[in-house]
Parts: sequence; C-alpha cells; structure tokens
Amino acid sequence: MVKKGNNVIVKEGVILGENVVLEDDVFIDYNCIIRDNVTLKKGTMVGANCILGEYQMDFFKTRNPGKHPLVIGENAIIRSGTIIYGDSTIGDHFQTGHNVTIREKAKIGNHVSFGTLSDIQGDCEIGNYVRAHSNVHIGQKSVIDDFVWIFPYTVLMNDPTPPSEVMLGVHIESFAIVATGSLLLPGVTVEKDTLIAAGSVVIKDVKETSIVGGNPAKVISDISKIKNRFTGEKVYPWRYTFKRGMPWEDSDYDTWYAQIEKQLKI
Amino acid sequence: MVKKGNNVIVKEGVILGENVVLEDDVFIDYNCIIRDNVTLKKGTMVGANCILGEYQMDFFKTRNPGKHPLVIGENAIIRSGTIIYGDSTIGDHFQTGHNVTIREKAKIGNHVSFGTLSDIQGDCEIGNYVRAHSNVHIGQKSVIDDFVWIFPYTVLMNDPTPPSEVMLGVHIESFAIVATGSLLLPGVTVEKDTLIAAGSVVIKDVKETSIVGGNPAKVISDISKIKNRFTGEKVYPWRYTFKRGMPWEDSDYDTWYAQIEKQLKI
Amino acid sequence: MVKKGNNVIVKEGVILGENVVLEDDVFIDYNCIIRDNVTLKKGTMVGANCILGEYQMDFFKTRNPGKHPLVIGENAIIRSGTIIYGDSTIGDHFQTGHNVTIREKAKIGNHVSFGTLSDIQGDCEIGNYVRAHSNVHIGQKSVIDDFVWIFPYTVLMNDPTPPSEVMLGVHIESFAIVATGSLLLPGVTVEKDTLIAAGSVVIKDVKETSIVGGNPAKVISDISKIKNRFTGEKVYPWRYTFKRGMPWEDSDYDTWYAQIEKQLKI
Ligand SMILES: CC(=O)SCCNC(=O)CCNC(=O)[C@H](O)C(C)(C)COP(=O)(O)OP(=O)(O)OC[C@H]1O[C@@H](n2cnc3c(N)ncnc32)[C@H](O)[C@@H]1OP(=O)(O)O
Ligand SMILES: CC(=O)SCCNC(=O)CCNC(=O)[C@H](O)C(C)(C)COP(=O)(O)OP(=O)(O)OC[C@H]1O[C@@H](n2cnc3c(N)ncnc32)[C@H](O)[C@@H]1OP(=O)(O)O
Ligand SMILES: CC(=O)SCCNC(=O)CCNC(=O)[C@H](O)C(C)(C)COP(=O)(O)OP(=O)(O)OC[C@H]1O[C@@H](n2cnc3c(N)ncnc32)[C@H](O)[C@@H]1OP(=O)(O)O
Repeated sequence: MVKKGNNVIVKEGVILGENVVLEDDVFIDYNCIIRDNVTLKKGTMVGANCILGEYQMDFFKTRNPGKHPLVIGENAIIRSGTIIYGDSTIGDHFQTGHNVTIREKAKIGNHVSFGTLSDIQGDCEIGNYVRAHSNVHIGQKSVIDDFVWIFPYTVLMNDPTPPSEVMLGVHIESFAIVATGSLLLPGVTVEKDTLIAAGSVVIKDVKETSIVGGNPAKVISDISKIKNRFTGEKVYPWRYTFKRGMPWEDSDYDTWYAQIEKQLKI
Repeated sequence: MVKKGNNVIVKEGVILGENVVLEDDVFIDYNCIIRDNVTLKKGTMVGANCILGEYQMDFFKTRNPGKHPLVIGENAIIRSGTIIYGDSTIGDHFQTGHNVTIREKAKIGNHVSFGTLSDIQGDCEIGNYVRAHSNVHIGQKSVIDDFVWIFPYTVLMNDPTPPSEVMLGVHIESFAIVATGSLLLPGVTVEKDTLIAAGSVVIKDVKETSIVGGNPAKVISDISKIKNRFTGEKVYPWRYTFKRGMPWEDSDYDTWYAQIEKQLKI
Repeated sequence: MVKKGNNVIVKEGVILGENVVLEDDVFIDYNCIIRDNVTLKKGTMVGANCILGEYQMDFFKTRNPGKHPLVIGENAIIRSGTIIYGDSTIGDHFQTGHNVTIREKAKIGNHVSFGTLSDIQGDCEIGNYVRAHSNVHIGQKSVIDDFVWIFPYTVLMNDPTPPSEVMLGVHIESFAIVATGSLLLPGVTVEKDTLIAAGSVVIKDVKETSIVGGNPAKVISDISKIKNRFTGEKVYPWRYTFKRGMPWEDSDYDTWYAQIEKQLKI
C-alpha cells in the first residue's frame, strides 16, 4: 500500500512498492522504481530512472526482497539514475547528481550532497553539510564529520592488506578539505582544518592545519600560507571565508556558532 | 508540439516535450526523455534511456523547467544513459559512450567525442575534433582547443583553493595529449604539442613540445624523443603520424592544412 | 522468437529481441532491453534498466544491428543499469555492480565480478575468480589471469604513445593484487603474487613477490613483509590466508589444489 500526502506528483511509468510513503509535495519523475518500505519526506524530488530501496543480496539469493527500510528526509533533490539501497537513513536537504549509488547501512546527515557518479559503499557515517563532488568513492566503515568537502575522484579505502577480513575505516574530521584525486588509505585520520592537495596518496594521519601532497603524501605547507588568488586574503580555515550553502550564510561563522552554543545551553 | 522530419524513428516509451524538433532520419531508442526546446539535427541517433534537455536547478526550486534550449548537430551518436542539459550547443558528428553527463552552457564543436561515464560540468568551451576517452571530468571554465586528446580518469579542475568563489579554468591548446589519470590544477595552460604522461599532477603551465610526468609533474622529456614501439619512427607531433577520424584522413596534415588556408583566403 | 525455460520471470516494460534464450529460473527486472541473439543461462538475474546485447557501431552506421551473440552463464547477478555488448562470452556465477559497461569481444571466465561503474572496453581476456571492485577500467587487449584482485579507480591502458595504432595490452598474472587507483601502462606484465600499492603508476614489469608503489612505481617492499593488522600474521600469498568466495573456501588452498591436480590426471 502507498500512502500519498497532498500535491504528490508521480509521472508515468513509476513503480511503487508496498508500504511506500510519499509525503506532501513529493515529485517522482518518469520510470522510477520505488521499492517496498521507502519513505520520502515532504518536498523531496526524484529524477527519472532512479531506484530507491534497491534490492540487496538476500533478494538475489532467495528471491525475497526482505525488509530494508529507507527513509529520505525533506526537500531532497535526487537526480536521475541514482540508486539508493535500504537500511539507510538520509537527513533533510539531501542532493545528488546523476547516477549516484548508495548502498545499505549508510547513515547520512542533513545538507549533504554527492556529485554525479559518486559511489557510497554503505556501512558508513556521514555528518551534516558534507559536500562530495563528482565521482567520489566512500568505502565501508568511512566516518566523515560535519562540514567536510571532498573533491572528484577521491577514494576512501578500508582494507589495508587486501584481500582480507580487516576493515579499517578512514576518518575525516570537520572542516577538512580533500582535493581532487586523493587516495586515503585504510584507517587514516584526516584531522580538522587540514588540506589534502590534489593527487595525494595519504598513507598516514594528517595533522591539524597541515597541507599534505604527493605520492606518498608528505607535509608540504600549512593552511595559513594559502592566499585567495584574487583578493590575496587568507583562505583557511575556510569557515571564515566561505558562506554559500552553509548555516552561517546570512551572518558569519562566529555569530552562527555563538547562537548554536546559546541554544544548546537553554 | 513536436516537429518531425522524414524517416524519424521514435521507439516505445519515449517522452517528447514541447517545442522539440527531430530532423530527418533522427532515431530515438526506448524510454528516452526529450524535454522541452530540444533540437536534434539530421541523422542523429540517441540510445535508450537518454535524457536530453535535462532539468536544471530552476525546476527543482520552482517546479517550472524554464526555457533552456539544447541544439545537437547532425549525425550524432549518443549512446544509452547519456544526460545532456540545455543551454548547450553541440556541433556535428558528436559521439558519446554510455552514461555521459553534460551540464548546462557547454559549447562543443564538431567531431567531438566523450567516452563512457565522462562528466562535462558545463560552462566550458570545447573545440573541434576533441577526443575524450572514458571517465574524463571537465570542470567548469575549462577551455579545450581543437585536436586535443584526453585519456581516461583525467580531471580538469577550477577552484585553486577550495571551497572558494574563485574559478580558474584549465586551458588545453591544440594537439596536446593528456594521458590517463592526469590531474590538471586550476588555471594551468597546457601548450600545443605537449604530452602529459599518465598519472601527472600538473601544477603549472606545460611548455610546447615538453613531456611532463610525476606528482607534482616535472619535465621528463621532449616529444621529439618518443618513438613508435613497432616502427621506431617518431610519433609526435601526432598530426603527422595519425590520421584515423581526422580531417586529413584521406591525405596528410600538410596537404589538408594548405587546402584550408587556401579556402580561408578566397 | 524468444525461448523461455521454466519459472522465467520477466517484469513489465522489458523488451525482448529475436532469438533470445532465457533458461530456467531467469529473472529480468523492469525495463531491461534484451536485444537479439542473447542467451541467459539458468538462474541468471538481471536488474532493472540493463541493456544486454547492446548495439555496436554497425547499427549506428547502417541501422542494421548485425549478428553479435552474447552468452551469459548460469547464476549471474547483473545489477541495474549494466550494459553488455554482444560478441562476448561470460562464464558462470558472474556478478556486476550497477552501471557497469562491457564492450564487445570480452572473454570472461567463471566467478568473475566487476563493481559499480566498471568499464570493460572489450577485446580482452579475463580468467576465473577475477574480482574487480568499483570503477575499474580494463582497456582493450588486457589479459587478466585467474585469482586476480583489482581495486577501485585502477586503469589498464593499451596505447603507449597515443594516439597511435599500437595496442600493447597489460598482462596481470594469477594471484596479483592491484590496489586502489593504480595506473598500469601499456604492455606491462604484473607477475604472480605481486602487490601494487595504492596510487602506483606502473611503467615497467613487476617481478614476482615484489611490492611496488609511487609515481613512477618502484619496488618498495616484498610481500613477505606484510602483516595482518589484527593478527600480526603474514598476509601474502593471500591464497593461504583468504578463503571467502574462493574454490578452497571449504578447506584450504593446498587441499583444493591437490584435488584439482588429481582430477586432471584421471
Ligand atoms: C573539480 C573542480 O571543478 S575543482 C576541485 C577543487 N580543487 C582542487 O582539487 C585543487 C585544490 N588545490 C590543490 O590541491 C593545490 O595543490 C594546493 C592548494 C594544495 C597547493 O597549491 P598552491 O598553494 O598553489 O601550491 P604551490 O604551487 O605554491 O606549491 C607549493 C609547494 O607544494 C608543492 N605542491 C603544490 N601542489 C601540490 C600537489 N597537488 N601535490 C604535491 N605537491 C604539490 C609544490 O611543488 C611546491 O613545492 P616547493 O615549495 O618544494 O616548490
Ligand atoms: C585507456 C587506454 O585504453 S590507452 C590510454 C592512452 N595511453 C596512455 O595514457 C599512456 C601514455 N603513455 C605515457 O603516459 C608514458 O608515460 C609516456 C609516453 C609519456 C612516457 O613513456 P616512455 O617513453 O616509455 O618513458 P620511459 O619509460 O622510457 O621513461 C622515460 C623517463 O620518464 C619517466 N616516466 C615515464 N613515464 C612516466 C610517468 N607516467 N610518470 C612519471 N615519470 C615517467 C621514467 O621513469 C624515465 O625516467 P628516467 O629517464 O629518469 O629513468
Ligand atoms: C576500495 C576499498 O574499500 S579498499 C581497497 C583495497 N585496499 C587498498 O587499495 C589499499 C592497499 N594498501 C596499500 O596499497 C598499501 O600502500 C601497502 C599495503 C602496499 C603498503 O602499506 P604498508 O605495509 O602499511 O606500508 P608502510 O606504511 O609500512 O610503508 C612502507 C614503505 O612504503 C611506502 N609506501 C607505503 N604505501 C605506499 C604507497 N601506496 N605508495 C608509495 N609508497 C608507499 C612508505 O612510504 C614506506 O616507505 P619507507 O620505508 O621509505 O618509509
């Protein structure tokens, strides 16, 4: 049975499974497949040809899809071709590019975006305001804290000595920036306010405020050294120089943070 | 309203929007979505499950798709799963592999090809006879001149100090070869007749006829040194040793160029 | 004409071509396109939106699809969005992730798996029990022997001096491990029991039991040096420490190998 709120639009060719909940203002474009036990919260829009609540291995082994609920928060924009498995929870204001895949047991926060072709292998924790660009691969056991940016063709690994049963997830701390084409080896911790230069092969922990680069990556600078190419001003920590899409967009980081602190004390 | 020329074939399940023009001999395979204001010129063939004139952010914000015309030239071969946004113009003899995405405001010349999974982020200029292989990422503000080859897993970046509002596009000049897995940092110019070795992390301009390689990339050789593995002959500049698919295919580069020059003077 | 065995399930929207054979227990999910001359053997399951027996260049040139048979063995699990061309043979127990593409003239063994987005360019030979993870690019002329593991974002190249008509395939021998993000240059041989470290740019042959890493890759260690992070035991050769999914899963490698040898002598 499908539960539909007000003003729900479902275009032709869409398949809706059992126990699907489409809240107010949900939009689902042509030919999507929404399998059993999927909930899309208010205002969420799903592009053509997406598959939500995709089959897991139990279906292929037993022909029984099992019960693998998927909850996607409010106001998501999920672009065409995206495939999301069940047993995952996704917060509000989620965005994907095209042909993104997200496997089971992903725990994803609010205001997260994954660019076209990104491949989230599931069994991972992703915080709020995490921005992954195109073609980012997030391996199982990855932990990504709030306010992290990950640029295209970056891979977070997990098996240090493959093939083995060892899984050591990568941990990226808040405000870290992982530039294009970086490879993060299993178990590394990328500390707060670091900058991993494009093409880095990161084989050990990256210490706060350092910039690492190279293969294997070594410390090449400190974030305090980086200047904006146009203004000549310091760029990092970037929460003081960049606002677009951030919760401090209407003021500045310190003002916003002070408000948050105040609210937490009430 | 849809305007169809002669001998247009549209397979089952195809959705055609408003103001779509399909010229003579156009072929559209199963389940494609051709949205409003898309023109496909003579002889163009579109594989299954493609989306042409894909929705942009205004649709997701306002539910109104806006007017974002897309014109694709004659004799294109667009393979299945490809997604092309509007506000782009694409010349004749365009080819894609599967699951290619091309975002808005891309200006693409004639005889261009993008291989499977390639991701063109829009707001870029791509000349004639540009061949990008599989899984090439072309960032916004990229400028690629005629007769450039780009091999798989290469990325053209644009933000030098992310996240920021600075966008410095990469410029690849004519006849340059960018080998597999190269990362080109924002703002670099890759000059004519250069060869970027596989796996290069290019952090500064590459000077004519040089070969760069490594992370970060340094000059490792000159193109005059490279010999064909079978014949032992010089390979570069490649316009003198390679013809397939090039406008000098039936003669040779100098003959073709002389003819072009003559025509330009008439 | 379509030949269907017992208990074949074909969901709505599926297109079946001429001379298609679906053996017992085959399952085809919504909207797949199974073109002419495709045979799916017993128990094979195909996810939504796959295209099997996809058109080759003759179709685009002549509008005639030609005859390009595709045979997929028993008990395959082909996940959604996957595209497989004809003129290929694929053994039993084949698995793909999502949006995998496999071009013509691929010769693929038993118990092979290709992860999400992997791009097999055809005209290649892949043995038994080859495991490629997400986003692996296998160029034409590649030869991969049995029991090889290839991790994400690895590319096997073929043109040593592009663009040219020279094609030198990469050869990966049995039990080799190619870690994440490795680039293997045309013509290299990766010998048995080697380990290519993540991010390697491999420009020359890799000798048995060596570990190479870096850009360009150099010998950095020997496989005998690697210890399991939890147990402290040696990991390689991995056939002695890893069993899951392998034919020696129920015993051990030497026992299994002895049985195989015995059978071959009968
Ligand atoms: C996808 C999109 O559309 S955009 C994606 C987002 N943008 C990116 O991924 C690119 C981000 N930028 C980077 O990664 C840059 O490498 C940065 C910011 C870390 C460093 O750039 P710069 O500050 O310009 O470094 P600069 O060129 O001055 O070099 C400083 C030193 O570091 C080295 N270096 C610079 N970049 C790198 C690198 N990526 N890898 C290794 N070493 C590097 C230089 O060789 C130099 O060494 P030296 O002091 O011994 O001569
Ligand atoms: C996707 C497909 O199917 S095919 C894709 C197209 N093909 C490719 O992308 C591969 C193109 N080939 C390359 O990039 C090669 O590296 C080339 C042509 C630039 C250089 O190759 P070669 O001429 O064989 O170089 P060679 O092996 O002789 O090495 C010359 C020097 O450069 C170094 N070198 C060679 N290749 C590289 C590289 N990719 N990165 C860094 N250094 C390199 C070598 O170490 C050597 O250094 P030395 O003189 O100090 O010893
Ligand atoms: C996709 C998924 O979910 S997981 C994918 C599967 N997993 C992977 O791809 C990662 C596999 N692991 C690797 O590639 C590792 O680099 C290994 C196993 C080859 C080496 O790791 P370790 O044994 O931990 O090496 P260790 O850190 O002790 O370093 C040994 C030496 O090699 C160097 N080194 C280690 N890794 C690399 C590398 N990837 N590239 C270049 N050099 C390296 C180190 O700098 C060190 O050099 P030194 O002796 O001069 O100081």
